[in-house]
Amino acid sequence: MNYDIRTLFEPRSVAVIGVSKTPGKMGYEVLTNLVRYGFPGPIFPVNPKYSEIHGIRCYKTVLDITEDIDLAILVSPVERIPKVMGELEAKGVRVAVVISGKRGDPSSLRIYESARKHGIRILGPSSMGIFHVKSRLNATLGPMDVIEGSVGLITESRTLGMALMGLAAVQGVGLSAVVGLGDKLDIGEEEVLEYLVEDMSTRSLVLHVESMKEGGSLRETLGEVIRRKPVVVLTASEGVKDELEDLMDHLPVTDDVTTALDMALALSSKRTAGKSFVAVTNSGGAGKLLRGMVSDSVVELPRPSEELVEDMRQFVPEGGKFSDNPVDITGRAGTDVYKGVLDVLLSSREVEGVIALHCETALSDPSRFADMISDLWDLYDKPLIPVIMGGRRATEAVLSLRRRGIPAYPTPCRALRSADSLVRWSLFSTS
Amino acid sequence: MNYDIRTLFEPRSVAVIGVSKTPGKMGYEVLTNLVRYGFPGPIFPVNPKYSEIHGIRCYKTVLDITEDIDLAILVSPVERIPKVMGELEAKGVRVAVVISGKRGDPSSLRIYESARKHGIRILGPSSMGIFHVKSRLNATLGPMDVIEGSVGLITESRTLGMALMGLAAVQGVGLSAVVGLGDKLDIGEEEVLEYLVEDMSTRSLVLHVESMKEGGSLRETLGEVIRRKPVVVLTASEGVKDELEDLMDHLPVTDDVTTALDMALALSSKRTAGKSFVAVTNSGGAGKLLRGMVSDSVVELPRPSEELVEDMRQFVPEGGKFSDNPVDITGRAGTDVYKGVLDVLLSSREVEGVIALHCETALSDPSRFADMISDLWDLYDKPLIPVIMGGRRATEAVLSLRRRGIPAYPTPCRALRSADSLVRWSLFSTS
Repeated sequence: MNYDIRTLFEPRSVAVIGVSKTPGKMGYEVLTNLVRYGFPGPIFPVNPKYSEIHGIRCYKTVLDITEDIDLAILVSPVERIPKVMGELEAKGVRVAVVISGKRGDPSSLRIYESARKHGIRILGPSSMGIFHVKSRLNATLGPMDVIEGSVGLITESRTLGMALMGLAAVQGVGLSAVVGLGDKLDIGEEEVLEYLVEDMSTRSLVLHVESMKEGGSLRETLGEVIRRKPVVVLTASEGVKDELEDLMDHLPVTDDVTTALDMALALSSKRTAGKSFVAVTNSGGAGKLLRGMVSDSVVELPRPSEELVEDMRQFVPEGGKFSDNPVDITGRAGTDVYKGVLDVLLSSREVEGVIALHCETALSDPSRFADMISDLWDLYDKPLIPVIMGGRRATEAVLSLRRRGIPAYPTPCRALRSADSLVRWSLFSTS
Repeated sequence: MNYDIRTLFEPRSVAVIGVSKTPGKMGYEVLTNLVRYGFPGPIFPVNPKYSEIHGIRCYKTVLDITEDIDLAILVSPVERIPKVMGELEAKGVRVAVVISGKRGDPSSLRIYESARKHGIRILGPSSMGIFHVKSRLNATLGPMDVIEGSVGLITESRTLGMALMGLAAVQGVGLSAVVGLGDKLDIGEEEVLEYLVEDMSTRSLVLHVESMKEGGSLRETLGEVIRRKPVVVLTASEGVKDELEDLMDHLPVTDDVTTALDMALALSSKRTAGKSFVAVTNSGGAGKLLRGMVSDSVVELPRPSEELVEDMRQFVPEGGKFSDNPVDITGRAGTDVYKGVLDVLLSSREVEGVIALHCETALSDPSRFADMISDLWDLYDKPLIPVIMGGRRATEAVLSLRRRGIPAYPTPCRALRSADSLVRWSLFSTS
């Protein structure tokens, strides 16, 4: 069988079977996403009711399409799918994304059987679709306003998947790919991972799974994948947690969507970090919160050496506390003071990672702070994790950094959790 | 001594000593907040350099003010404070908020000594100031765009306090009061709590503390306070955690600012909740995440009775899974389906609290969902915790509910954690 997983991610042409002109219907949303996102190859909508849709010719059946079809997206009513599978086989189509279906419904099995009968590999049923920035392919039910970036998202759930895409967008986490596994009756995590581990545009992965075969090969595959690309598993399943227990030191498993996206963002930097961090803060109080959390983390905040303290002190005109870590450069510290101190830390061989904690005050300028961080990010390879805490200006600064792929966070807790995942992965991948 | 803690929260007149015309300076920010927030009584700026500021007469010294001064706000340079204290005594001022000072600096003690010598009670030094919606008093360094609500915030840290006020605003958590304890050399947590526990506009409290006297009376005071008003303690101090250990079942202690604000929002509803919740979801996947987290919580999601299932089922035309909890009303469920099911649950005697989980999809309308929730919130007394997960529309819907004082959350994790704190407090306060 001449199926290749690349056809799923990099099709040259796409047929959407069961399109609709009614907004809100799956057949409308998927086609609209596909067209508006600018898929460069031919798009073939199929529905006997229409002759055109979105200004594109609409076909009565798959068999009316004379050109080659690489990938079929199925949004047809479930009962029509067996017939469509026959037509797809006749057209030589080898892979289909089945968005139709009710999750876990007996009809899923019938869809799978008909696909297998006709030699067609399927993603789904009940897939949320497939999205791949590099191919300008958005054949999903998800929102349009995706931020492009380097986090890949694999999800079993159609509705949760849509919400996750939306959440990634508002939280400033850029995505490179989204794969809706749905009922995963045929193409499963492993094939998808095998593609995405090679995909240069994807630098870290969130894998949402609700179940995992006990003693199956996915555990082993994941062990291999994380040697090359960091993965965060999003699940609340005790079974999955048990199955992954051996890997958990380096493969974070969480039931919180924010944590999963936060970690994936830090991991997508692929900056390897040792344990030994220095944190800088303009608020002793915020520094103490961070300090208190460190005991639950592999991140360490050792006392800086006297030499390092001397180098930092020159940039802090009034006061400051250097004997501690976080280093407190006081609430009067402006962006220039931060820059001086951060430069010292990022150049120092004794420091393996830096957290730059900035509380928004009447005196501070979060947007200038963010620009300064962005410059330093480009200048050094060392992990640099900014925390900008405060109101509207702080929130905007965090988002502006995230849109540039820099793992910025609005609170110490979220930053440290993400730094922890980065260190854990680094220790593993460089071991 | 005729000092009364009410003078701090409900002054009839305020003098600000050490004002400045330079934005970013503490003496500018505090006065500007005070004026712009619309304090109704007389404001007396003091600085020998100016004759007016913000169109208000500026006095050379405190002694030049002929009218009565209820409350003094000190933003003067530290070395001038002893002299100012003498003048305040001469004017009959009994209480001052000392914003000046470096946290933990030896000069703090000198400030305190001079205040004591002149019989003046102080909040601070290094206080972030005081904010009280009911008195239209914003004498803080914090941001202007505060959302008014019913959460009171008490904080030791000046810079963290500003960031917390900002964070509360962007996260839609309405505040009733903010008290900057600073070095808390004189007025401490206990006096402030004694006022706020009586303050009708404050319905829950976040108490940020970095240290607590071992075996001191604060522990006991907190035990009393939480019988009447819920408190969340924000701290990373092991000492504080040890000290509060006995109370922790009902007094949440967290080192995460988001968690603290989230919990305080749920607690400010003061709706007493039993353990027995039903959750409703349009996403099986999101429901499973919530379900998986419940084991770490006092919240229980028992299987609904057959009678309840029958009552719910009539509103769900296609499919749905009612045997589980969360009840899955499927991704096709619109606002009307939610409303029907939620009405049933909120009226049922078997249900003690409801979580309404809604994932944003192409079909859904988060803003209509939010309006529906708001109506039900007004109609029933039972805890109703909405989770609206997704992109921009979901985020806006969460914020619009929060601004109405309704504890809405963007993720299942944050909602459940907050529901947990509400149940724990309820079990205690009603016992």
